[in-house]
This record gives sequence, structure tokens and C-alpha cells, in this order.
Amino acid sequence: MRIALAQLNYHIGNFEGNVAKMAERIAEAKAEGADCILFGELAVCGYPPRDFLEFADFIRRCEAAVEELASLAQGITVVVGAPSVNPVVEGKDLFNSAYVLSDGRVQDKVHKALLPTYDIFDEYRYFEPYRDFHVVKIAGRKVAITICEDLWNVGNENPLYPACPMDELIGQGPELILNLSASPFQYRQARERIDVLKHNCARYGLPIFYCNHTGAQTELIFDGGSVVLNAAGTVYDEMPYFEEGLRIYDLSEVAASAEGPARLSADRDQPKDKFDLIHRGLVRGVQDYFGKLGFKQALLGLSGGVDSALTLVLAAEALGPENVLAVMMPSQFSSDHSVSDSEQLCANLGCPVIQLPVAPVYGSFMEQLEPHFQGKPFDVTEENLQARIRGVYLMALSNKHGAILLNTSNKSEAAVGYGTLYGDMCGGLAVIGDLYKTEVYALCNHINRIRPVIPEHILTKAPSAELRPNQKDSDSLPPYEELDTILFEYIEQRKGPREIIAEGHDEALVRRTLKLVNRSEYKRHQTPPILRVSPKAFGMGRRLPIVGKYLG
Amino acid sequence: MRIALAQLNYHIGNFEGNVAKMAERIAEAKAEGADCILFGELAVCGYPPRDFLEFADFIRRCEAAVEELASLAQGITVVVGAPSVNPVVEGKDLFNSAYVLSDGRVQDKVHKALLPTYDIFDEYRYFEPYRDFHVVKIAGRKVAITICEDLWNVGNENPLYPACPMDELIGQGPELILNLSASPFQYRQARERIDVLKHNCARYGLPIFYCNHTGAQTELIFDGGSVVLNAAGTVYDEMPYFEEGLRIYDLSEVAASAEGPARLSADRDQPKDKFDLIHRGLVRGVQDYFGKLGFKQALLGLSGGVDSALTLVLAAEALGPENVLAVMMPSQFSSDHSVSDSEQLCANLGCPVIQLPVAPVYGSFMEQLEPHFQGKPFDVTEENLQARIRGVYLMALSNKHGAILLNTSNKSEAAVGYGTLYGDMCGGLAVIGDLYKTEVYALCNHINRIRPVIPEHILTKAPSAELRPNQKDSDSLPPYEELDTILFEYIEQRKGPREIIAEGHDEALVRRTLKLVNRSEYKRHQTPPILRVSPKAFGMGRRLPIVGKYLG
Repeated sequence: MRIALAQLNYHIGNFEGNVAKMAERIAEAKAEGADCILFGELAVCGYPPRDFLEFADFIRRCEAAVEELASLAQGITVVVGAPSVNPVVEGKDLFNSAYVLSDGRVQDKVHKALLPTYDIFDEYRYFEPYRDFHVVKIAGRKVAITICEDLWNVGNENPLYPACPMDELIGQGPELILNLSASPFQYRQARERIDVLKHNCARYGLPIFYCNHTGAQTELIFDGGSVVLNAAGTVYDEMPYFEEGLRIYDLSEVAASAEGPARLSADRDQPKDKFDLIHRGLVRGVQDYFGKLGFKQALLGLSGGVDSALTLVLAAEALGPENVLAVMMPSQFSSDHSVSDSEQLCANLGCPVIQLPVAPVYGSFMEQLEPHFQGKPFDVTEENLQARIRGVYLMALSNKHGAILLNTSNKSEAAVGYGTLYGDMCGGLAVIGDLYKTEVYALCNHINRIRPVIPEHILTKAPSAELRPNQKDSDSLPPYEELDTILFEYIEQRKGPREIIAEGHDEALVRRTLKLVNRSEYKRHQTPPILRVSPKAFGMGRRLPIVGKYLG
Repeated sequence: MRIALAQLNYHIGNFEGNVAKMAERIAEAKAEGADCILFGELAVCGYPPRDFLEFADFIRRCEAAVEELASLAQGITVVVGAPSVNPVVEGKDLFNSAYVLSDGRVQDKVHKALLPTYDIFDEYRYFEPYRDFHVVKIAGRKVAITICEDLWNVGNENPLYPACPMDELIGQGPELILNLSASPFQYRQARERIDVLKHNCARYGLPIFYCNHTGAQTELIFDGGSVVLNAAGTVYDEMPYFEEGLRIYDLSEVAASAEGPARLSADRDQPKDKFDLIHRGLVRGVQDYFGKLGFKQALLGLSGGVDSALTLVLAAEALGPENVLAVMMPSQFSSDHSVSDSEQLCANLGCPVIQLPVAPVYGSFMEQLEPHFQGKPFDVTEENLQARIRGVYLMALSNKHGAILLNTSNKSEAAVGYGTLYGDMCGGLAVIGDLYKTEVYALCNHINRIRPVIPEHILTKAPSAELRPNQKDSDSLPPYEELDTILFEYIEQRKGPREIIAEGHDEALVRRTLKLVNRSEYKRHQTPPILRVSPKAFGMGRRLPIVGKYLG
């Protein structure tokens, strides 16, 4: 039995595009003699379709796409994810299903049992969990078809679900496990995924063919990394990250690799270096945001600091340097090196760069506003005013030239609210918004090791917003090493103040930091979507009340 | 048996404040001889606590608050909502629970079985559904305690859940039903709630004591309207909307009202006029947003149009006219009446008003920008520039004076993207963002009938953004009556293009409108929270992909 894994970059709601892409891969797999081709979870509509699933019209289009794929399933079995209508009147109206297509029609359907409803996942919002398990016959073999999370309840200390689908299926004597996934990237995911699959191999003694999405859907990036493990839990092959591809595997060869002399001596998976993955993931995220929205041009404000420098490097790699306009907007508080460092970076990259001064417009605003300031002194108002003038400049250029403004905020400043709403928080996409400041530096260093493009001075000078004389981030924030540790404990680890203090951090600092995080929720509410690379990003996966009083 | 319903305005995460408020009501109920006092769902922490529930520290504080309330439960039984830890290792870590407190300690716990996970609700994100039902003894009576949604699976054509908690409980012979709710307002909710409760009375033949929250938590407004129905399904009493209160009921009197000569001749509920409810709800929503964040002052841009006029009226009612600064910012395209109508409105209300011109700053921006516009003609860029200058003015005043900027966008323009990001889309709270333009007019007329404050000319002139010469909304949008109908069909009713066209709307118009709605998702992503008054508001209850291609 020859099994093809098609790891594809779908586009949510683009049925025509998704089906055309799958049709090509079906033809290719047939030509190479595959008996079966596996696509991703909810592949026909893309993942996550979110509330489009609540539209009957959308579901009809999903069904039509499945019919079209069924007509192509001649001489090959196609296994593809799509929503299907729950025929039982009680419960949610849909299932998250895998369709088994052959001989030109739908032969069987299997539905997802474990519905992730945490972090960025909302599956129980739409789907009824399935309880009625059965194995499927493909090319004369008994196959256990599972959908993503269905395999993830094994090997946990604190299992999320009372049920375990493979425990139900194993009694029916399946010979292999297929898994259709839509498993979004974060820097630990590739490792965790293989660990989970190994747990399944150990528990059930079966080979697993796991097929993931690749490509980005707004903030979610899918890393691909589709993988085949033999019954011994050894990685037989892992497909590339962040790229489309088709690979065909011979079941008997996979089986043979589990035993005897042909047993694999080492797992054939790829390195999973955190910053290498993040680097490639972010480039893919920018490319797909632009590509799927039909845009080619980007722009951003280049301050001379490390955040905008990194964003520019990533955007130039994703879109081509000629498509990314860098805009320098020095104010009276900007240092000379802000401009010279920025110019050097643009020269290194080959990006166009222009300069717009903040001062004239600032003067014009202040002339009107001062009579209404009632003699109050220079404060955050005037700082924000500079940032907002920059925002207006950038949005004007964005509108006039049809270019998307990239947001350059990092996760540390988003966390504590160290940014100006409608100023430096503007943009269509936050490229590095899921990287703490210390991770921003680490990624810059990683990139400079590949190709030294970021001027050293950008990486060594003290971070500053340059919104008042001689301002430094360290005037109002603790050193980033310490701040980021506290933020990680609170945001990723969800520890409380007592636990974080108990780890040796200064109590006043911890309390002030957590208070800043909770009080800045209103700012993050209006943030652009943030490319997610961590296990807990700001945005759809972290939902907090704005008027909440907890630790605030 | 005397039962007290305490309808309170909680504050999320403000344990001290919530417990103090409940302690007062416990004392009051005891003084009036109540055997039992009922609070709302998750009352100790406020609703919805959202991802705060994922913090062990937050759960510990909930438990401490319950302990504190237990110590007050002397000579009275307290029934109060709080999260509790699921002792079973499989499944979600928490239950959404009702604690039964008496003799100074926790006597019993009951957990929610039906977990709403749709629209604005995310309960399965946090809670394990409960399956192990039992009635509770209070003052010698067998009581069925249910939590909000637990009673909502009865009487539906398409039930959301396979289970029905009261079907399980009824066999244990309960004499009455208590329900702890946190049921957010929308203009149909009060009516639907009573219908649902009547269905339960009809099915189980028991009286129901239903206790809701009141007050707003960011975008969600809780209307209160706690209600007692007798076993015949007649409304014995309904508590006021949008206000706190405590009422005590004698079970025997409620029972007697269901039969014989004392049977109530008519339901004792209140009128449920849509715009009266919306009016009171929005005022409450503004009050609580400011009150719970600790702010007193608001400001907004007053354009001379109907949206900002209505927002000003509501804010003045909520915060006091002296606390709401109206800012007029005419540009070269503004008509004279924009200023005179605005001044008249402020005089009617007693609000302070100032004027800031757009032209000087606009000139200053254009001087810098024009060299970079490559000779391209006046377009949406220059329109947006005016709107963004206004945004910067307003945010500067907001920062300098510690006042929250109110957003004045309506639902029609948010739907089709007829607004400027970082311009008129700025603000901390969107007050009328869940009202279609036609509803904005209807609410203005409703308010003017109570007290004629909005100048007639504001209500009769043609709507215009006044961003280019002689601009009218009708230049680029269909008449609002038609637009709003199409939007309602798509957004509230979730109909597809074919169904909407089949109702007699022009095909091209429908397709263009739905495309605009879907393509504007990126703008709505960065919108302030919108006070929710409809069954389907933009914001947390409507989740759509930005890069999606469906109908776009």
C-alpha cells in the first residue's frame, strides 16, 4: 500500500483555489502509483474557518468542494478534511470530518472526537464531538482515521478529555493510523508533536501517517512537518517546514523499518532550533498575509532601534527588498545615529528609504492644542503626539500607494503597554509582536550569523523610544532580561504573583509588572493581528476582560 | 420558605468589592427573615472572567471569597456562583459551580452541565460539563439548582445539547427550581428569557426563581430582570432592568398564585420596548465602563451628524453633561450647519464644547507628504488624513486631561468599513457600535420623545462624512434602509448571498455589500470594544478570519 501525504498551504474560504491545488496533487500521486492520498484537517475550506462555519451557504460550498474532489477519486482513495452536517437534531449542527473518497464518490466519513477549545482553538463552538468510532477500509487494509487532537490525549499527566478515540478503535484491529491535522506553529510544536505521536506508537503499536497544513492564515502559521512514524515510534520521515510538498510512502517499507536489520538507527527528523524555526515561520507569515490579501508592497517606520530593524529584515526577505519602503521620521528627540544606522541597514538590504520630519507637524498640532492644555506640563501626551504623527504619515503613504503598514511592536512592550495606540501600534500585521525584547535580539543575532545585515550599533545601543530628551527604556522599565522572565512566567506559564515572587524576583517589581500587563488590555484589544510563534501569544489565544480588576 | 434574589452589579476580579456587596445583601435578607439568598452565576469573580480562569492564583482567590461568604452564612442559606476545581484528572480543570453555604460552611456544590460555547460565550474553554445531578436540601425543601444555560435546552426546535439537566433532576422530586444566571443583554433577551422559563414551568410543573447579574463588563451589559414564575408559568414578579436590587419572595405565596382564586390574571413583567431597553442599557454600559476603570471624564468628536450627537446624549446622561467634552473639528469640507447644530446640541445638554480646526495641521502634513505622493490625485488618502488628524487631536486631549475618548461609529459603517482606522475609529469604547444607522435614528427619536434635546436638523439632513466637497453617504452606499436590511440578513441571520437575493434585493448590491463586510474584517479587528445590544454584535461574539476569501 502506497500512501501519499499532501502538505499544502490552503486559503480560508477560497474553495476554488484549494480544490485546484488538491486536484493537482491527486493527479501527481496517482501518476506515482499511490493507493491513497491524505490531505489536512478542514482542508477544503482552510483552517480555521471560524464563524464562516455558521453560514449554511459556506457549508454548502464545502460540500460542493468535497463532491468535486470525489469525482477525481478514481483509482485512488482521497482522505480529506471538511465540515459535515450532524444528522442528529440535538447537539451542534456540524462535525469536523474526514471524508474517504473513492470510485468517484463519498465512501465513508469519520468525525473528530476531541475538540480543542483552548488558546487559539474554538472547535466546540462549532462541532459536536463524535462518539461512534469505526475503522475504515482503504486498499484492503483496516485504517484508523483520526483528526489532529484525537491523538493528543495520550501521554499527558492531566488529560484534557475523558475519552481517547484510539482506545475505542484499537479493538477493531486497525493496521495503521492516519491523522489529518491543522496544527499551528509555535516554537515548541514540532518537538511536542513528535513526542505525542511516539506516545501513540508506544501505546498502540501501529505506524502513523500524519499530514499537516503549511502556510499562514492571518496570525496563525502552520509549519507543516508532516511525519511518518513506524510502529516502534521511530521517525521514518519528516516533511519540510513551512513549505508545500507531496511525498509517497510504501507501508511495507515503513513497517520493515520498525524491526530487524532494517530498523532505523536514528530518527529522520529535522533540527528544531527555536530561532531558525521562528525566522522561517515569520517570513512565511508575512508572505501569506500579503499573498492571500493580494498585496505586494509593504512599508514601515524605521526608528533606528532593533524592533523596526528586525521587522524590515523579515519583510525584505518575505516580499523582496524593493517592495518594502522604510520611512525614517526623526523628531527633535531623535539621536543622529537613528538616521545613520537606519540608512546603513537599508543600504545593506537594498530597501528604498525616505525621510519625513515630525517637527513641523508637531509644531502645527501644538499651536492648536496648547490653549486647551490648561498650562499642564510636557507629559505622555506630547510623547504620544510624536508617535501618532508618525502613524498618520505611515497610513497616508499606505493609503496612497496601496502598501500595507507593518507594525514593529515586540511582545515585551505590548505586555506592559509601552507603546502608543494609533501611533507605533498602527499597522495591518504585527510581525514580531510575539517575541519578547530579549528574543528580538536573539533572532537578530541568528539572522546576522546567516548574513550580517543588521548594523552592530543597532544591536548594542541602549533601547529608547526617543520621545523626550535622553529617554531610555530603562528609565521606566526594568532590564529586559528580568522583565521578560517575569512576563514569561505570567503570560506563558500563568503563574500568580506569589509564585513569581517566590522565584526570587523583587515583590514590588512583580506587582507593578503584572498590574501594567492587566491594565494594558485595552491597548492590546486594538492591536493588529500578531504572528503567533509562542505557546501563548497576545490576540485570539489570550482573552481577558478590559474592565477586570484582577491584579490591576 | 422565604427566598431572596440579589440582583447585583459585580466587577470582574474585584473579589473584595464583590464580597462586600454580597455581605451587605446577606445581612439585609437575614434582617427580613429570608431562609435563603440567591446570587448570580460566577458572582464571586464577576462574569465573564475569561482567561483569568486559567490562573491558579485567580481560582484560589475565588475559593477564599467563597470561604468568606460561608462564614456569613449563619441563619441563612447562601447560594452563590463560583468556579470550583474538578477533582477528576481527565477533562477540564474547573466546574462552573453553585455553592450552597450554611452554618458557616460549604454544604453542597452543584455544577453547570450545559456550557454555552457560541457567540460571546466560551464556557467549554474552561469548564467540564457536569453529568452527576442531585437535588439539594434547603430549609427542609428539595431544591433543583441550575445554572443559566442549564434551563435553556427546553422548547427549542434544534436543541444545542444532547442532555437536559432538569430531565435528570425531576425524578428526584424537587419542589422548586433555582437558577443562577449571567445572561447578557440584547434587545430580545428579556422576552426570550421569560419564554424559556415558561417552557420549563410547563415541562416540569415547578416554580422558578431566576437570579441574573446587572451592570456592564466592558462590552457585555447584563440587564438584570431577575424573575419568579409560578408552577403554571405565570410571571409572579420581575425585578427591574439595569439596576441592582434585592427582593424577597414567600414560596407559599408564589405557589398559591398558580392556582385557585389567587391565580394571577396577567404576567407581572415589564414592558420590553426595544429602544427603551437599548437606551437604558447603553447608559448603564457607559457608566460601568468608566466606573469600573476609575474614570469620570469623557470626550468625543462632535461632527454635526447623528452618530456623534446620539453618543454625546448617552454619555451626558451616563456621566453628567459637565463631564463630557464635545470637540468640534471642522475641515474645509464641513458645512456651516455642522458647527451650529453641534453648538445647539451642547447648549441643550449643558456640555462643554471646544473647536479645533483641521486645516492648519492638514496643510502641514500635506506639505511634507506631497513630494512622496508621486503626483497621484486626491483620493481616500486625503479623506483619511482629515479623520486621522481629528483622531490625534482627540487622543491628545484624552491623554492630557485623563478623559476617555468615546467612539461614535455605528454598526452599518463598521460593517462595510466606511470609517477611518486610527481616525474616527479611535476610542476606548464604541457606544453605539451595535446600532445600525436606521436604529441610530430610531433611538434618537425615542430620546427626543422623552426630552427633545437633539436638534431636528441633525435628524433630517442627509448623512455625510464631509471629507470631500459635497460628499454624501449615499454617493458610495445604498440608502440605509436597504443597506441595513441586507446587513441584518447577513450578520444577525447569517444568510448567504443566494438567500438574500431571493428576498428581492438587487444581486449586484448584495454581492458588493457582503464583499465589503468580509473585506473590512481587518478594520473591525482594531475597533474599540462595542457595547452589545443586539443578538450579534461585532467583537468577541463574531469571529472571522482576516485573510479569508469567502464572498470577498
